[in-house]
Amino acid sequence: MVQTIFSDTIVALSTPPGAGALAVIRLSGPAAISITASVFSRKSLAEAGGHTLHYGTIRDPASSDILDEVVVALYRNPRSFTREDVVEISCHGSDYVVRQVLALMLRQGARLAEAGEFTKRAFLNGALDLAQAEAVADLIASDSALSHRVALNQLRGGFSQELRDLRARLIKFAALLELELDFGEEDVEFADRTGLARLLAEVRGVVAGLLRSFELGNVIKNGITAVIAGRPNAGKSTLLNALLREERAIVSAIPGTTRDFIEDEVSIDGLRFRFVDTAGLRDNPADEVEAIGVKRTRQRVRQAALLLYLFDLTEMTPADVQAEIQELTTGLELPVLAVGNKTDLASPEIQNAFAAEFNATIPTSQATVPLVLLAAGRNQGLEDLQSALLTQVRGSALENTASATIVTNVRHARALETAALHLAAVQAGLDTGRGTELLAADLRHALAALGEITGDISSEDLLTSIFTEFCIGK
Amino acid sequence: MVQTIFSDTIVALSTPPGAGALAVIRLSGPAAISITASVFSRKSLAEAGGHTLHYGTIRDPASSDILDEVVVALYRNPRSFTREDVVEISCHGSDYVVRQVLALMLRQGARLAEAGEFTKRAFLNGALDLAQAEAVADLIASDSALSHRVALNQLRGGFSQELRDLRARLIKFAALLELELDFGEEDVEFADRTGLARLLAEVRGVVAGLLRSFELGNVIKNGITAVIAGRPNAGKSTLLNALLREERAIVSAIPGTTRDFIEDEVSIDGLRFRFVDTAGLRDNPADEVEAIGVKRTRQRVRQAALLLYLFDLTEMTPADVQAEIQELTTGLELPVLAVGNKTDLASPEIQNAFAAEFNATIPTSQATVPLVLLAAGRNQGLEDLQSALLTQVRGSALENTASATIVTNVRHARALETAALHLAAVQAGLDTGRGTELLAADLRHALAALGEITGDISSEDLLTSIFTEFCIGK
Repeated sequence: MVQTIFSDTIVALSTPPGAGALAVIRLSGPAAISITASVFSRKSLAEAGGHTLHYGTIRDPASSDILDEVVVALYRNPRSFTREDVVEISCHGSDYVVRQVLALMLRQGARLAEAGEFTKRAFLNGALDLAQAEAVADLIASDSALSHRVALNQLRGGFSQELRDLRARLIKFAALLELELDFGEEDVEFADRTGLARLLAEVRGVVAGLLRSFELGNVIKNGITAVIAGRPNAGKSTLLNALLREERAIVSAIPGTTRDFIEDEVSIDGLRFRFVDTAGLRDNPADEVEAIGVKRTRQRVRQAALLLYLFDLTEMTPADVQAEIQELTTGLELPVLAVGNKTDLASPEIQNAFAAEFNATIPTSQATVPLVLLAAGRNQGLEDLQSALLTQVRGSALENTASATIVTNVRHARALETAALHLAAVQAGLDTGRGTELLAADLRHALAALGEITGDISSEDLLTSIFTEFCIGK
Repeated sequence: MVQTIFSDTIVALSTPPGAGALAVIRLSGPAAISITASVFSRKSLAEAGGHTLHYGTIRDPASSDILDEVVVALYRNPRSFTREDVVEISCHGSDYVVRQVLALMLRQGARLAEAGEFTKRAFLNGALDLAQAEAVADLIASDSALSHRVALNQLRGGFSQELRDLRARLIKFAALLELELDFGEEDVEFADRTGLARLLAEVRGVVAGLLRSFELGNVIKNGITAVIAGRPNAGKSTLLNALLREERAIVSAIPGTTRDFIEDEVSIDGLRFRFVDTAGLRDNPADEVEAIGVKRTRQRVRQAALLLYLFDLTEMTPADVQAEIQELTTGLELPVLAVGNKTDLASPEIQNAFAAEFNATIPTSQATVPLVLLAAGRNQGLEDLQSALLTQVRGSALENTASATIVTNVRHARALETAALHLAAVQAGLDTGRGTELLAADLRHALAALGEITGDISSEDLLTSIFTEFCIGK
């Protein structure tokens, strides 16, 4: 048994609340097994080996009432999520039963876990580093292939390893610099300044790359808000339904996951697009009421990351479309897609003529607006739209998503920014031949910032602010 | 390994949907273990013993993507809930992860389980009888101590055993009657008619008792709807809050169980009371608008099981209270409680005088209306109210709840009614010396009705109608 640092035992419901076949109540701490054994029908539990399952009943010793028939999963320190003794009680998924069992565990000496406390213990007992612990929350919140992949990579330590390698190499130089300081007056140079400069350039490049990945990471984690504008009969619902069709087929196969909001969300190649509806733009923009509608639409466009202007190919001229896009984007700077719907009702000649004549640009940036033609109702041209959306959103950075580390966490980005500043100061110090003491101090600050990400360096305040973001039971 | 009757393997999410620390995906069937092993990082899973836990990763063999880090709980036929091979995969509680893992299991050859299909298999494989299987759903839905106790007793086979004992004794007689029929012409009597009559009387008594318990069982299962009427400042919210206080303390200790509806629900001694709000009754009942309010209140009272008339002891006379109760209950027949609030503002003399003068009866039944005096704001007299509520609701039947079987299921009550009818026919046949053939037929019908409850006799239609009421994953 490994010595862990907590003497109390925590308990919480670890599955979502509500009625279901099963609910799992988790205990962790030195008394997790003895507390469970004190109310469990099989007293042999206390002697059972780790990674075993035990069927039996939970009985309140005070009233002798049986609370439920359960299965107890037993994990022994250190082979558990928290590295402590852990018990997971699978009971019937009733809020009433869960309440009773939790209340009983509290009476038997457990304490209700705070949000994220299981993961916090896993971190403090050395089972996970901080970035991995944070990935647990990201993984639970992930709702697209990419956000899931990035979180899982981070949970599995990919990001942490990259940072640790960087830090290890910097630490070697820092140690040499500190050694020079120890020799104080003697003016020796243990640390090879040329080698340090080379390493610094390399590390700064990696940190800058990680920081650049944050913009993309943010998009991966939080999705892209795209406003759809267009006249009422442009075919917005049809388009969304067509995009949603494949995804829906999977969603509806899962019991109970009523996700009405998905009406407007589509995952394309792993990236989540959140489509925001706008008031339809009508024929007569001079009308006063209509003007208000356009104004509101523009407000929404201002908050978006992308504008998708949808129009009926058989009803609008290229000039109409260009004018409306221009009106919507005046003073704004964001990617715009023009999407002409209903190609099934327009001859190839008309389509070609439209495409040839169409030449929209965004007033502010003078960027060209790509044109996509499709027939949403017939599922024709959807792939073109999808790849146009992806091209607008992701730069070349995404090309290497599968292998490169992507920063998604604001805290990590801030720490990387701090590290970058101090590394720049070290660089400047080297260039100007500053004293060892100043170089060493800047390097220490940079190392501290990088160490904060994995929790090699951490404060109680930092831990509290991180783990209270978690759900209880994790 | 026991031969079970299904050749396919089913899969479903068994915990409630939504974000949480854990989600459990359950597989059951002959390929449960091999399907899991085909995507699990530890191939030794296929050879592992039952009741063991295995940590590893789930990987999609097609894309080589890791979907999650999980713990696999393994149960081997017949030592599992369904008596088949069962695997429970604890993954991170994200809808996205759950979708991916479920979709992967389907691709690997599992089939999505229908509602209640795990429990249905448990029944068809002989792990549970039908009444026990139904108790699983009741247990999950239970929300008070009594409904929970009754469901758990039924799940643990208490009710089934009682019915089986009855049936076994009747079957013995039925067999003797059938034997008489085999001897046809010979006019022998193997079955002792006096013994049969004695047994019949006993069995009919038990069945009648079970049927009587259904009324109470219904109250236990569904709670008691109590309408609270009274003038606006009578102290309704204060009273509810006082009653709720203890319960809330427990509820709020459970993460995520936001139960706003509990605002109006209180569990007293294990019985659930659902308090229904009504429009306040004002001073001037002659006013036309007010008359509508009273009418609406009366409509609500008509649908209730109990009326609680709450009034401010310092503002109303006994005559006022009697008049309002009379007005509310004219033409109705339901228990009524008069509750005088704010004893802390009335001297003992005033209270005694009020109690001495108060003499309300319900017009229809001429039943006396009990009077309870309390100070809700100071938590004084709440126990008196609680015991008065319980006395109004439960008859003497409840005295023996802990030991006696209580029928809560409409299907069971109907089957018992059918059995009672046929048993009465047997009795009548015995009394009038009817032929063996008719007696035997009636006895067979009675046995069939009793057998339907435990599923000793069942049809596919019956099973379908029972199990589709379940949630998926159970």
